[in-house]
Amino acid sequence: MLPLPVLEKAAAEMTDANGSGQSVMEMSHRSADFMPIIEQAEALFRELMGIPGNYRVLFLQGGASLQFAMIPLNLASVETGNKAPVTLVDTGVWAKKAADEASKYAEVIIAASSKDKAYTYIPSAPPPASGSAYYHITWNNTIVGTRWPAIPDTGGVPLVADISSSILSEAIDVSRFGILYAGAQKNLGPAGTTVVIIREDLAGRAPSWVPAMLRYDIHCKEASLYNTPPCYGIYIIGLVLQWLKDSGGVDAIARVNRKKAALLYEYLDSSKSFFSPVEKQSRSLMNIPFIPRETDPAKKTAVEKRFVKEAAAAGLVNLAGHRLVGGMRASIYNAMPVEGVQALLRFMEAFEKSL
Amino acid sequence: MLPLPVLEKAAAEMTDANGSGQSVMEMSHRSADFMPIIEQAEALFRELMGIPGNYRVLFLQGGASLQFAMIPLNLASVETGNKAPVTLVDTGVWAKKAADEASKYAEVIIAASSKDKAYTYIPSAPPPASGSAYYHITWNNTIVGTRWPAIPDTGGVPLVADISSSILSEAIDVSRFGILYAGAQKNLGPAGTTVVIIREDLAGRAPSWVPAMLRYDIHCKEASLYNTPPCYGIYIIGLVLQWLKDSGGVDAIARVNRKKAALLYEYLDSSKSFFSPVEKQSRSLMNIPFIPRETDPAKKTAVEKRFVKEAAAAGLVNLAGHRLVGGMRASIYNAMPVEGVQALLRFMEAFEKSL
Repeated sequence: MLPLPVLEKAAAEMTDANGSGQSVMEMSHRSADFMPIIEQAEALFRELMGIPGNYRVLFLQGGASLQFAMIPLNLASVETGNKAPVTLVDTGVWAKKAADEASKYAEVIIAASSKDKAYTYIPSAPPPASGSAYYHITWNNTIVGTRWPAIPDTGGVPLVADISSSILSEAIDVSRFGILYAGAQKNLGPAGTTVVIIREDLAGRAPSWVPAMLRYDIHCKEASLYNTPPCYGIYIIGLVLQWLKDSGGVDAIARVNRKKAALLYEYLDSSKSFFSPVEKQSRSLMNIPFIPRETDPAKKTAVEKRFVKEAAAAGLVNLAGHRLVGGMRASIYNAMPVEGVQALLRFMEAFEKSL
Repeated sequence: MLPLPVLEKAAAEMTDANGSGQSVMEMSHRSADFMPIIEQAEALFRELMGIPGNYRVLFLQGGASLQFAMIPLNLASVETGNKAPVTLVDTGVWAKKAADEASKYAEVIIAASSKDKAYTYIPSAPPPASGSAYYHITWNNTIVGTRWPAIPDTGGVPLVADISSSILSEAIDVSRFGILYAGAQKNLGPAGTTVVIIREDLAGRAPSWVPAMLRYDIHCKEASLYNTPPCYGIYIIGLVLQWLKDSGGVDAIARVNRKKAALLYEYLDSSKSFFSPVEKQSRSLMNIPFIPRETDPAKKTAVEKRFVKEAAAAGLVNLAGHRLVGGMRASIYNAMPVEGVQALLRFMEAFEKSL
């Protein structure tokens, strides 16, 4: 979901952006028309997230999935082919994918896991394994609906976090991290742009055999213009960031996000028909799974199917749980207003009465 | 440059695509709303290019620059770290970049080069080096304005071609190639989507250490949905392909492209002030560089600067030659109508008289 004013501005500027006489899709990426667009997007990121001067903001491609490989390739792999140790915390599917890719280029040490309880909590973070090149966490876990309650202390080991589904949803102290990365398609804009915020000193560590397109040093040196970047995605991200700034910035949207989440969790915690499977201190602000209290498997599945179908008919879409865990899930990213959650609660109340 | 009807349709559908009530930028990539969009884009590619059934059409990210690494990683690298030989023809900057990346994972043999004459011709293609895993060419060279006059015979060695700047500009016999690839930003749509057309049997050759996102086998198996694809770019490409089909298809656009190019080359070949530096049989249909006949360096530079400035004032933009070669360059991709070339010729005639 994207803010309506952003889409309306994009539509209005489709054939003539900023008086250039052309669409952003038609601009050369090194032109005087496009440069202010990417520079403004970076400036807004720096302002909204309070990014320190010794961090670079990169606009790349390939989503979090490509970062899963780029991070170990740049931080842990070495010329000789030896593998450096890296520390990861396993909080579900996306954390596991990051570990699978890292294991190709690094010695992966899973310091903690919440697999024992179906990933319904964030484990307390152990210190990094000795000699770790980095320490990786998945800040918000979309499928199970968990979120790190606090930034783990990793000593001098660079902390790397996937914030694809939580970026700009609440304040985060960038200076505590070595790398923060996010696919754009949750809170930022269209799929196809990846934002990487990297501490400068971490960018020059890749061995010579790493593909040019996967090297942070090249992208830093070329200011994201080593090859043609996803110009239109960067433009839309800029519009979203401006909307966020105009809406009061990160603290303001965080208040809205906490209110939206509180409304849903309060409802679930007192509902006779549904519950949240996630431990309270680990609950996500963005993705809220809920499960029927019905325990008979066939009846439970019937309730889920009816819920998703009738909700869609009432204009509440995308409420099926992830195919790996089932149940239902409300994804309430920045662009979802409080009214959207209130409409969902009204539907749930009526649905419960009909059970 | 994109066709105006495409941009107008995109603007009209920005908040409600195909009656879905949402923007394509908001669609889940596995949803019933998005699947027809990617399927239709593929079907149009197959129809317009006559792609045989044993080829797959992939929608990836990272541009040609990432393909420069993916091709050797998938076709030439082996588990043990040994390097297989690959054959490349050097026709300029982009061919050189493909060779540089390949040299990280393969034993690169440059079978021919036109560097001796500043890349102003396509060399005749020698047979592939013994045991070559593939044979790579850059079909159209944007900077110097050359194009392969015929498909080289590589025997049983898979022919791989970068067609970023010529895809769908004229018919090409796909069955003669192992892989064809193109960044979208020239003839297809917005930057950020890469189209790869790959013969099925070539997709399963990557060693296990290749990043998941760089493996053709994974993208084939997941039908370009291994991770979230650049949905909006794929949507725009679909609109461009539909426009091309409605305009009569590839043969019709090729007639227009040949006419546009002929107008410009005929003018240049008889001009007293400008000339084309490219040998006749190697001339591009898409990128036409031209150089003042003035030989005094200072005067030549002055003519170039005045030309670009006055042309821009007359609404003819992007006519500076590439920063690596100087001069001027007209890029006349599919979306440029004959009238655009005629306007340029009128400007050039008037400019010549003023010299």
